[in-house]
Amino acid sequence: MKVLRLLRIQELTYDKKDKRLASAIKNMVGSRPLNLSLYRLAFRHASASKEIKSGVKISNERLEYLGDAVLGTVVAEYLFQKFPYRDEGFLTETRSRIVNRESLNQVGQKIGLPKIVETEMDGKVPYSFKSLYGDTLEALIGAVYLDRGYYFCRRFVYERLIIPFFDLDNIITTTTNFKSKIIEWSQRDNKEVDFVLKSVAGSQRFKEFTVELTISGSSFSEGKGSTKKKAEQEAAKIACEKLHLIL
Amino acid sequence: MKVLRLLRIQELTYDKKDKRLASAIKNMVGSRPLNLSLYRLAFRHASASKEIKSGVKISNERLEYLGDAVLGTVVAEYLFQKFPYRDEGFLTETRSRIVNRESLNQVGQKIGLPKIVETEMDGKVPYSFKSLYGDTLEALIGAVYLDRGYYFCRRFVYERLIIPFFDLDNIITTTTNFKSKIIEWSQRDNKEVDFVLKSVAGSQRFKEFTVELTISGSSFSEGKGSTKKKAEQEAAKIACEKLHLIL
Repeated sequence: MKVLRLLRIQELTYDKKDKRLASAIKNMVGSRPLNLSLYRLAFRHASASKEIKSGVKISNERLEYLGDAVLGTVVAEYLFQKFPYRDEGFLTETRSRIVNRESLNQVGQKIGLPKIVETEMDGKVPYSFKSLYGDTLEALIGAVYLDRGYYFCRRFVYERLIIPFFDLDNIITTTTNFKSKIIEWSQRDNKEVDFVLKSVAGSQRFKEFTVELTISGSSFSEGKGSTKKKAEQEAAKIACEKLHLIL
Repeated sequence: MKVLRLLRIQELTYDKKDKRLASAIKNMVGSRPLNLSLYRLAFRHASASKEIKSGVKISNERLEYLGDAVLGTVVAEYLFQKFPYRDEGFLTETRSRIVNRESLNQVGQKIGLPKIVETEMDGKVPYSFKSLYGDTLEALIGAVYLDRGYYFCRRFVYERLIIPFFDLDNIITTTTNFKSKIIEWSQRDNKEVDFVLKSVAGSQRFKEFTVELTISGSSFSEGKGSTKKKAEQEAAKIACEKLHLIL
């Protein structure tokens, strides 16, 4: 089966529409698909799912679940290798700023998903559905993974998604400091923000600090961490989220 | 460098302790390590981190971050392949029942991490630290991934972690039905539980249902989903969590 695919025997059976799809995928992914049906499934959003026997619906949601995981790993390793001296808190935070609904949606649009999705869904694109292209991008990553394997998929994500579309320097500057963000906010809005160390648990070797963030004297959020600084960052981060200060 | 590693030149420099560690890893992972220092790092929990110059601490937390992602992907694919007809909600839920702090902790202990960690940390194991072996297991997975690549690591996770230690049938039976769980609870505790459809948003093609779960008439939790059933499951799941009914 694999040999047949590598010989691209399947391509002999392509009709016009298949050929167009295969070449669109080649432009997007960097190589012709071996198993076209995987990609066709990736472009089938739940809102246009086909119902097969016994009520089972066929849509890209399973591929999206798989692609989401693969993308998470690939980006995790990318940052791990790129920032050998940063701690896991920084890596996790930076990753979540790369892999999120909104940014994936934008990237999905930039690499040309709208046109393919429209063709595949016979024009019935649910424009109202916000994360359509982000979901589809994840499903596409899942399809590439199954079709061409992990390392090909990793190169696809690095070279065609992360490097062209994410300005890491910019992401990092805006990532890091939630504490300064909340303090800026307090100065702008004339509020009093304080960080209060509530408790230190654990042994001498391994401590857990709990810090409470107060606004004008009343408790607003709480953070935990292995250092006071980390606990403060965590509390500040939660506060930033509550106040919608994070882009 | 890679050739040197494959020739295992490094092994010539092993001292007694290294040899013992390498053979323990071979038993655990299924193959001798190519880069022993990665594994040594994996066994160095934050509570025993070494401080190097400029205050940077060396511990397994970065490897844990990487291993967590890799494990997530490997388990995601395992379930994806094993259950071709189940939807992504089921797959996500089942995955989170495999990959969680407690189960990883147990598996980490079963594959023999305590002894290695104790040796590597010169006996200074922080027994009080609850997720020590789960964290270390994730870090080990990260080390295996970096040392031997994705496919080796995937086989390690399948053959040495999932298949021997997880009873999937059992996980699935207890996973699925939160609605029946909450109803059982209501009968046992003589409460009245109701599911109330609050709203249906979206277009004709793609709907979002919102269901409210009430206990004895007052609102207790809310769930959303693309079908009424999914929204009910979600509301029931949140309620089960609030009531600590999930094992």
